[in-house]
Order: sequence, then structure tokens, then C-alpha cells
Amino acid sequence: MSDVRKQPTLHDVARLAGFSTSTTARALGNYGRIAETTREKVRAAADELGYRANPLARSMITGKTKTIGVVCADLSSPFFAEALRGISDVAKGRGYDILIVNTDEDVASERDAVALLRDRHVDGVIVSPADVRQVGHLAALQTPERALVLLDRSSAALDADSVTVDDVSAMTDAVGRLLDAGHRHIGIVTELRIEREADWQSLLGDLDHSERRELNPSSRRLLGYLRAHREHDIPIDPALVARTGATSVDSARSATTRLLDQRAQTGMTAVVTVDNTTSVGAYGAIRDHGLRVPDDLSFIAFDNLDWTTLVQPAVSVIEQPVYALGSRAAEVLLDRLDGTRDTPGEEILLDTRFIERESIRAVQQV
Amino acid sequence: MSDVRKQPTLHDVARLAGFSTSTTARALGNYGRIAETTREKVRAAADELGYRANPLARSMITGKTKTIGVVCADLSSPFFAEALRGISDVAKGRGYDILIVNTDEDVASERDAVALLRDRHVDGVIVSPADVRQVGHLAALQTPERALVLLDRSSAALDADSVTVDDVSAMTDAVGRLLDAGHRHIGIVTELRIEREADWQSLLGDLDHSERRELNPSSRRLLGYLRAHREHDIPIDPALVARTGATSVDSARSATTRLLDQRAQTGMTAVVTVDNTTSVGAYGAIRDHGLRVPDDLSFIAFDNLDWTTLVQPAVSVIEQPVYALGSRAAEVLLDRLDGTRDTPGEEILLDTRFIERESIRAVQQV
Repeated sequence: MSDVRKQPTLHDVARLAGFSTSTTARALGNYGRIAETTREKVRAAADELGYRANPLARSMITGKTKTIGVVCADLSSPFFAEALRGISDVAKGRGYDILIVNTDEDVASERDAVALLRDRHVDGVIVSPADVRQVGHLAALQTPERALVLLDRSSAALDADSVTVDDVSAMTDAVGRLLDAGHRHIGIVTELRIEREADWQSLLGDLDHSERRELNPSSRRLLGYLRAHREHDIPIDPALVARTGATSVDSARSATTRLLDQRAQTGMTAVVTVDNTTSVGAYGAIRDHGLRVPDDLSFIAFDNLDWTTLVQPAVSVIEQPVYALGSRAAEVLLDRLDGTRDTPGEEILLDTRFIERESIRAVQQV
Repeated sequence: MSDVRKQPTLHDVARLAGFSTSTTARALGNYGRIAETTREKVRAAADELGYRANPLARSMITGKTKTIGVVCADLSSPFFAEALRGISDVAKGRGYDILIVNTDEDVASERDAVALLRDRHVDGVIVSPADVRQVGHLAALQTPERALVLLDRSSAALDADSVTVDDVSAMTDAVGRLLDAGHRHIGIVTELRIEREADWQSLLGDLDHSERRELNPSSRRLLGYLRAHREHDIPIDPALVARTGATSVDSARSATTRLLDQRAQTGMTAVVTVDNTTSVGAYGAIRDHGLRVPDDLSFIAFDNLDWTTLVQPAVSVIEQPVYALGSRAAEVLLDRLDGTRDTPGEEILLDTRFIERESIRAVQQV
């Protein structure tokens, strides 16, 4: 504890600057009427003493906390970890701190998180909504002073900026490559929940008009899969759509195992996944089945994770700019807060990239 | 914005309860003298109205913010992501919020982070110090009211709780397994920095007395490697110790490539790594060299990451309880804050586990 020194107080600054404490407080806090020369003298005195304002006191006066809240579905997922790094780097550079809350992709937890962040008077919030149609609590969070940005998801029900990738196009392109290579029975492992049966029916029945912003990412990526089939005039076999019903490697592994067990009936020759969790689970199941990629089965993973180049042969992937999703979301949010952005909420789409490696084999049609 | 309702104020609670606002504030804030029956009536009124205290105002009064700061070296690393999840789950369960700061494993950034968290009046801090011997700023953070817990590192220079794994023993055991299998030329990929030449010399010269708590995890794991050799009476070849000098997959990959290029001279038959970053880099380099594990080279990774079971053959690993490191650190910190823990700072060591898979092959001595 030897290098603890007594912190200089507002009173010390006032004495050195030669003004009253109330004038000094106004000068340091940038509020009330104050002459520019006074402000400069007070600041010089504060710098000389190494005075640090008390952010709590300042927050009580300004109503600003220089804090943004980040609501994560799962802090431990590689996707959120990397996106959070992007958010953090931008926030730090612009003098904002980050409060994080984990929700386990649960709407009730998300409501609690939002209440907590509102109590904490955060200046803005970045959130990946658990359900893009149940967003009343998020709408309630938006005020003229408090901004909201959606990350990885957008919602037609909110007038808020969103930063996502164009996943419908990304998946249409990737599945199109498999179809071009002659595959006619392509499995997909998605995280659609049981209660989303209506999604599934509406996706199938209304491929053109499905509104991207009413769908969660898994559903949007499934939409890409369906559209690719239609573009190639290939019928869809519902038995090839594995819905895990949960966001976990184990559930993705089980769902993929079911797809693999039915190969004799479905004739499945390729599998695609919709995010890093389903990718790990699906690849693990394929490996456990003793199947070789691409000799026995072609495979495309969503997200360019380390392991996709460590396995042999390396896996072709749809790469998302995960860090940039986070950093862009933070930039947009902070631009709202400092008033440099005042247009209506915008849907910002970042590009994905298909990285061709060694996991796709052409199939001869018989 | 339709479901925004006006928040009830302290004044509303006071009116309903039938007390003055100052009495009501004391009752809700748990400060000053107040009759128990008054407190109960005020609380009932607050509950009825759905009154939420203003944490800023409460913090100004109590000096507590119910916030803990977490100082991360790299938010995007799988290790920190998982540990942070553990911290978050415990903190949430006990009503604390988390402010996070990323430091890039840099002492100067860490000093800034600590100043920021102090300004924010966090009640406690969890940190993995960038350098366990440059900790003056961390010592200065400790006050009777503010607790500090070290995560993944401990320091002889601080009287603070630390939560780490017993990595010296873990690495002694793992390298011992390779030596028992007949390996005599085992490479290790560590993240020691150039400026730590003194560490290296002192490690080599003073294996018995090297104080675990004066070493960063990479050095401690290297110490285990060195001790295993001594226990087996096998000399150490400095050419087999690859020091990357940085925490990145690319630098680990380059360092491993140098080890592999020198195989003709060193006779290296096995490689071990010290954390998830060096594991990914080293395995990638081995793969790029076209070497087969374990036929051409045996391999042990530190950290049980997903990919170690996706590659074929699967990689034997030293597993750390990463989530538990985080959750335990949070428990210890919050126990300090609520006064249930008041013993001197303790070095808490969690167990690692060696998971035998298919990446080690026995070598015949000639």
C-alpha cells in the first residue's frame, strides 16, 4: 500500500485556482455559466494536482454515466467474445465503460437485464435480442437520451440501428455452391426452437415475402438454404432440416447424429450449419460416425473458427466479420450519443466471405 | 415506446407509506436510525408501487456501487470468455454488476484500467495481472472497503486472494508422461517475453527455490517442464524451448515452425504447449509441416478446447476448470465484500486433469 497518496479534492483545486468551490465545480463539470478564462485556470489547477473528478457526483449532475450496457446471450461463446472485444476497443477509445449482462438467450432474463441497465443509467445499450419479435422492453429502453443498437439481429418492431451480416445471401450462396457441385440431398443443422413451428411453416410457404427482420439469425440462414434450393429448382426434404431446439454443442451433435442415422433413407451427401455452435456439434458427430469429409460427406461451417483449419482436410466456411460487428455497433451507438448520428434507425449489413478449402466434393448425378 | 410508464418516485412512496421523504429515504437506503415497523411499512409501499431505487443516489449515500470491475488481458480469448461467464453467473446471482476493461496484457493499460475502476467506485476488482511483479497499482487499489482477487495468476508482492490452477504440478505430470513413454527431446512452446531473460536464467539455475508466485503462468508451466526433466534425470536442451515473446497464435506458429525446422539437429519427438493460444499455433504449424500426430510427433495441449477432439487423432490435453476459476474468484471477492471472509489473502489452487487421448506415441530408445 506504499504508493497510495491522498487524492486531491475539489477543495484543493479551488484553493490553488483561487476560486470558490462552487465556481470550481461548475468549471470542471461544464455546467452553469462560467467565463472561459476561469475555466482554463481551474483546469490548469486540476491538472497540476492530478485531480480526478468523481464520476458518481458528475453523473448525478449531468445525468450521463459514460457507460454502455452490453446484453450478451452467452459470454462464453467465441462469437460474443470476439464481438465484445470489438465493442470494448471502440468504447475505450471514446472514453466509455462497459457494463455486461449475460442472459442465456432467454427473454425473461433479457427483461431483467434491461431493467438493471436502466437503473444503472447507462447512456446506451447494445443487445442481441433473444427474440426479435418480443422487444417491448427494448422499445421502452429507448429515450431521446438513451440509444439502442441491435447486434447480430435486427427487428422490424424497433426503430433502432442494427448491425448484422447479410446471412440470407451468405447461405443462399454457400448452399448454391453445393447444389452446383451436384449435391441434391443437403442437410442443415439449425437452432430453431420447438415453439417456432410457425416460422418453419411460414418460411416454407412464403419464401419471397418472409421479412428478414422478423427472423432470428438461425431462421434467416435457413431461409437462405431454402431459397438456394428454389433457385436451383430442387425440392426440399423436411427430413434434412435438423432443428436442435437449443443453443448447445451437445444438442447440435444429437441433431446431426439423427441426420446421419437416416442417410440410407434421405441419401444425404452434404451438411451445412448456421453458426459456431452448430458447426462444432455437427463436425463432432460426423467424426464420431467415422465418416470422412469430404469423401463420405461434404461440409460447410458457418463462422471461420480456428479449428476449421486445424482439422484435415480443412473446412470451407462462411466467414463473418465478428470483431467488426462489435466495433461497428459501438461506433453507431456512440455516434448517436454524441449527436453526430441523428437519422432514423438503420439496418447495417456487413459482408460475409466464402472461404473455399477442402471439404466439398463434387457429386455425379445418376 | 407504448409500454413506458412513469417511474414512481421516492415522494410517491413516502406519500403512500405516510412518512416524510427523509424518513422514507433512510428506510429504503438502510442508513440512519429507523424503527423496524417504519422500515416494513415503507418497503411495503415501495413494493406496491414498483419503486426502484436510483442506484446513483444510493451509491452517493452508501459509498457502494454493487459493481465489480474485471480487468481482462484479452476479452476475445476462449479462456477469458469462459472465466468471465463464471464471474458473471456468480455476480448476477448475488446482485452485482460487472464493468469490464481490456488491457492487451500491457502493464500501462492495466494501470489506466485500475484508475478508471477506482474512479468508478467499484466495490471490488478481479484481475489477471500483466506482470505479477509490477503490482504497485494493484496494491494501491486495495482498501478496507475494496477487495481485490487475482485470477489465473498469484503474486508474492500482494496480500490478496488468488485463484489459479496448480500448473507447475500439471506440467510436471504431463511432461513426465512423455518422458515415461521414452521421449528424450521434447519441445515446449511458451509465451515468455524477451525482457524475461532473467526469468529463464533463474529458472534454470534455481529449480527448487523458484517461487511460484513470482512467475507468470507461462513461466510456471515452463518450470514444470524443467522439473519433470530433472526428476527423470534428463538434461535440458535450450534449443527445445521456443519462446514466442507475444500472446498470439501467429507468434506461436512461427516459434513452433522454428522448432520443427531444427528437428534434424535436436531430434525432437514431442511438443507441449502452455495455453490455448500456443496450442492452436503449435498444432497449426505441425499440420502445415505435413507431420502426423502422433506418428511423426507426439503432442500435448494445455486447455481442453473443442478442437482437440475434432482433429484426428484427438489431442491429449491438460484440462483446466476455466469456468470454475472465474466463478470461484467471484465468490471469494463477494465473500470479502459482504464480510463473510476476513482471513489473510489466500492462494487458492484448483485441480487440473490430464485427459489421455490419441496424440502420444511411445518411443523406443536406441
